[in-house]
Order: sequence, then structure tokens, then C-alpha cells
Amino acid sequence: MDAHIAPPAEPGLDTQAASYRRIVLDSRPSGRPTAESFRLEEVNVSELQAGQILVRNHYLSIDPYMLGRMTTGMSYAPSQPLGAVMIGETVGVVVQSRNRGFSVGDHVVGQLGWQEMAVSGGQGLRKVDVGATPMSAHLGVLGMTGVTAWYGMTQICSPVAGSTVVVSAAAGAVGGVAIQLAKARGCRVLGIAGGSRKCGYVVDSLGADACVDYKKHADIVALGQAVRKHAPDGVDSYFDNVNGWMLEAMLPLMSRFGRIALCGMISRYGDTPMQLTTHSYLLISRLRAQGFIVWDHLDLWPQALEELTTLLQSGSLLSGESIAEGIEAAPAACIGLLSGGNLGKQLVKLVQV
Amino acid sequence: MDAHIAPPAEPGLDTQAASYRRIVLDSRPSGRPTAESFRLEEVNVSELQAGQILVRNHYLSIDPYMLGRMTTGMSYAPSQPLGAVMIGETVGVVVQSRNRGFSVGDHVVGQLGWQEMAVSGGQGLRKVDVGATPMSAHLGVLGMTGVTAWYGMTQICSPVAGSTVVVSAAAGAVGGVAIQLAKARGCRVLGIAGGSRKCGYVVDSLGADACVDYKKHADIVALGQAVRKHAPDGVDSYFDNVNGWMLEAMLPLMSRFGRIALCGMISRYGDTPMQLTTHSYLLISRLRAQGFIVWDHLDLWPQALEELTTLLQSGSLLSGESIAEGIEAAPAACIGLLSGGNLGKQLVKLVQV
Repeated sequence: MDAHIAPPAEPGLDTQAASYRRIVLDSRPSGRPTAESFRLEEVNVSELQAGQILVRNHYLSIDPYMLGRMTTGMSYAPSQPLGAVMIGETVGVVVQSRNRGFSVGDHVVGQLGWQEMAVSGGQGLRKVDVGATPMSAHLGVLGMTGVTAWYGMTQICSPVAGSTVVVSAAAGAVGGVAIQLAKARGCRVLGIAGGSRKCGYVVDSLGADACVDYKKHADIVALGQAVRKHAPDGVDSYFDNVNGWMLEAMLPLMSRFGRIALCGMISRYGDTPMQLTTHSYLLISRLRAQGFIVWDHLDLWPQALEELTTLLQSGSLLSGESIAEGIEAAPAACIGLLSGGNLGKQLVKLVQV
Repeated sequence: MDAHIAPPAEPGLDTQAASYRRIVLDSRPSGRPTAESFRLEEVNVSELQAGQILVRNHYLSIDPYMLGRMTTGMSYAPSQPLGAVMIGETVGVVVQSRNRGFSVGDHVVGQLGWQEMAVSGGQGLRKVDVGATPMSAHLGVLGMTGVTAWYGMTQICSPVAGSTVVVSAAAGAVGGVAIQLAKARGCRVLGIAGGSRKCGYVVDSLGADACVDYKKHADIVALGQAVRKHAPDGVDSYFDNVNGWMLEAMLPLMSRFGRIALCGMISRYGDTPMQLTTHSYLLISRLRAQGFIVWDHLDLWPQALEELTTLLQSGSLLSGESIAEGIEAAPAACIGLLSGGNLGKQLVKLVQV
């Protein structure tokens, strides 16, 4: 009565006898992680307890915040324990259920970690409809990434048509959605990204009016001059994914009453703190700078997802993805992301279907 | 028809023949100003043109922003020209009028500068009612000072009853009003001020729950520990008049979703910029930091003045003032203010009545 065990939803999956692979944090990196930071394990599927479900993860999301969890440095969340499965968001399919809230075949997004399968009590899992949207989009434009961009852009940057918006890490998952949301609001949008391949993507694929290659303007003064050339009347909204020297360069360029959404600090993950000397522009130019984390604003997710789904289905939101194949590729995907290798959302595909 | 010249409103003032004294900026200070930065002049009252009024200034307001104008450093306003009358806010009485908008006897507040009398076209002058409130209050708790404290506290710090509020430069003009507005909202209020005399004033006269003497805790770590002792659960709102090392110390102490009103940077007026290294707490703790200048928000002045007048008239707002006597005392009052000598609002009384 309180449990209904169903057969595997996908042909060929004998979960009772199956083993699966997962990746644990093997040693804590002092700076950026290396291949030696991780360890691949193979484990057997255990029998479900009442209230549990077994999920087969189809995609794993690789995100910059992971470094903050791997190191013991300052972060807004507890550290990733050593020897435990690496934290990470997944989308997958329920293949067994002893929980009345979930049926076999349900698609679920959640923090199930770097593993091919996961047993869960269902807490924190979000059912998603993959009828009209690709499964992977629920980790990207229709997931944490998209809602993060939506919150920072619409609730903090608050751009109005005709205003000038700058987005850093513009070729990344969050930055790319932020660029497109600002364009959808009729803004003049300028990206900052590293390298001509990324800058080409930001302009040609994401629709930004221009993109500054910070690798060609690799100090605070040069970057400031390059951005100012494209924004001679000042920057009204800055979506900051980088912090550090890029924030330092941007503060003096802000227009009066400008708004800065502080979303990420990829410039300093694993490094020593960057000294900011231009923060007096917060007062001089009467700016508002606000840090945020999308999990604090669950009440706004439905509104965000409604806009993002509409844009995606109408073809006006590109769901840019870089996809690595197989759980064994996750460490390299993570290392690559942290060194700026990816275009758009970095995913790992865990299932060949 | 377009002019009505009236006799002097005050007995004994023969303005037609009168001369008056004023202070001009004689040399631009490189750091803090000295007595040699200023020059006292005596000039004759000139005959009014159509549309002009002659104002006899009763009080001059001395404010920290003046240093930013005297130096050529970064500020949100143009520099004070050399050889011109020092800028400054005054309250006074109209003694002649060739402007139909003003009558002899009107009390006016405006930027009439460091001088005993001033000819004005009336632009930017604000008539005030001194029937039930002292004239000097219109430069302090019922003027720019009070509205500045009101805006930063109510519109940015947004404290709710029971929350913890910290105000720096708490014995100063703006800080003192900010302390009292937070207490009026039922907050636990902690001041930061320099020296036991000021701290005693902040607690005993302004009603703060405690006051940290930053001179006894004169580095970032020590100050942070001293504030934390009084705010073990974190600081929900911080009204910052200081910037620099005090902002550096406060950022890690803020509660999640805390708010910081950036009102002044007295720590760095005339000095080199302070490096901030704790700004990542804006993201980690999801803070909102906002700079503001009260002149940007003229629409809210009536609402602010209504609350401040009510509090003042009911006796629950102390209008703390330090008053120097005579225009010749203005330079010393300014130098003293910038080195932290004053309690409450620093005024210069220009008229013996």
C-alpha cells in the first residue's frame, strides 16, 4: 500500500542486479582541481527502503560554484566532504519508486551528484515536463542557470529598453542567458569574454551588440578603455560573474544610479582575494550592488521559468551547451570549465539513449 | 511693478551702506585644509538687480563633503573654484527683495556659502517655517543632514523592529539622526565613534544600546571583534559614513540579506583610496550596498521632513549641535570637523541676535 515497485522504465536496465559508477572527491585541491582530486568508483544498486526512489541520471551539470565547495575557502555553503560523491545537479528518470510522490518514468531535477544512478528520498527533487523541451535544458536555460540569469538581470540589473548592459563571462552558461534576456528587453548589450572564439559566439549566436575580449585587454586600465569605447555614455547595468579585477575595472564606468548584480567570482575561485580600490564609485555614482543566490528566491522560479520557457519555445533563446560524454569525463569537464574552456552550459551526458 | 524694495527687517541693519564678511578658498589643500587654505574678505553690499534678493545668513552649515570640493580629488560634484566664496549651506532671513517669490522677513535655506550676506536670484532657496522650530534645525535635523539620515536609514537600511543596526560616525550630524531613527523603529542600535566622550554622547544622549570606540580598537580585526561582541548574530543594517577600513571590517559581520547604506567616506577624504578585500561578502552573504546622495531624492523630502518634524516636536529627536561664533570661526570649525572634533551638527552662527 505504501510502496509500488515498478519495472525499469527503460529497456535493458536491470536495476536489481546493476552496478553504477560515481565520482568522489579524493583530495582537496589547494588551488584549481586536477585529475587527482577525483576518484571513480563502481558500486552496486542497493535495495530501496520505503519512501525512496531510484533515479537514473541522464545529465550532470558542471558549474563554477563547485570549486568553492571543493576547497575549504569562503563560500556560502558547506564544503564538499572528502570521500563523498561530488555534489552536482542532475536531470534523470525515476526507474524504481517506493515513494508515492514519484512514479516510474517521472523526470526529475535535483542535487543527485556525480553519479549514474542515485537513491533519493525525494526531498529537493523537482519534477520537470520534457514533453516540449529537451531534458538537458532543465539543467541549463530552464534550470538553475537560466533562473540565476533571470533573477540577476530582471530583479537587480533591471534594464530598460535603450539602456546599456554589460555581462561578464558572457559566453558561459549564466552570462549567455543574461545577454539574451537583456536583448529581449531592447537594451544595448555588451559582453566580456576571453578569446575570439568566445567573443564570436557572444555576438553571432547570442546576439550581443559587441563583445570585449579581455585577453586582448588584460589589465584593469586596458579593459576599462575597451569597454568605455563601446559604452561612451556609461554602463547602466552590469551583470558580474567574475568579481576581482573585472569588477574593479567596471565600477568607474557605471552610469549614475547604475545597478550591479554580483552573481559569481570565478576570477578568484581558489585564489587569494582581489583588492578592490574603486568601490568609492558606489557612492560617487550612487550605485546599487547586490549579491544573490538563486536558491534564496524559490518564490520567483515559476515566473522566471514561464518567461524562459516562452523564449525557448519561440526560438528566441539559444540553449547553448557543451556536452561531455560519460561520467568518467566529468573531472576533465570541471577542470576545463574552471579554466574557461566551455561555451555555454557545461553538461556531462551519462546515458546513451 | 516687478520689484518691491523693502526696508531692512531687522533693527539697525542699514544694508544700503553695509559691508559684510565672507571667506574664499585661497589655496587648494593637498590633504586636509589648514588655516592658510582660507581667506577672509570684506565686501560691500551691491544694489539688487530685478529678480534678486538680499539674504542675511544667520547660520552656516559645515559638512564633511566640503573637503571633496576643496581638493581636486574624486567627488560627485565639481570642485570649489579658487578665490570664490566657499560653498556651504545657510539659513537666513530675506532683508531686501526685488523678487516676487520672496518677501522681506522670509526665512530661507540654501547654498549661499560662507558669508554673512548674499545676493541671490532665488534659485534653489527653500523657504522654511521657523514658527515652531529653531532656525538652526533647518540646517541639521530638519535639513540636509536629517533627510540624509532618513533616506539612508529608511530607504536603504530598511530596519525592522528587533533587527540589529550599526551606524558609523555615530556622534556626527548624520550618524546621530540615523541612530535615533533606528531606535524609533525598535531596533537594537550600535554606534561606532572615536573616543569616550563621543561614545558617551551616542549612548547617553542619542539612546544607542552601545557604542564601540574605534580608537580603542584601531585595526580591522580588533574593530570587527568589538562590534561582533555586541552583535553576535550579525548586523542586519549598516549605515556607513566612513568607508575605508571600517567598511572593510563591517562586511564580514553582516547578516544574510543585510543592507549597507553608503553615505560618506570621511575615512578617505583627502587621502589615497583604501583597498577593500572583504567585498566578496556582498555575494557570500547576499548583501545590498547602495550609495546615495540626498539631493537625488527631492521627491521624498516632504515625507522625510514630516517624520523628522514630528519626532523633533515630540521631544524624541535630539538636535545635537556644535556652534562656532562668527564667520571668522568657520575655517577652524571646518578643520575641526574633518579631524573629528565635533559632536552632532557643526554650525557657525553668523549673527548675534
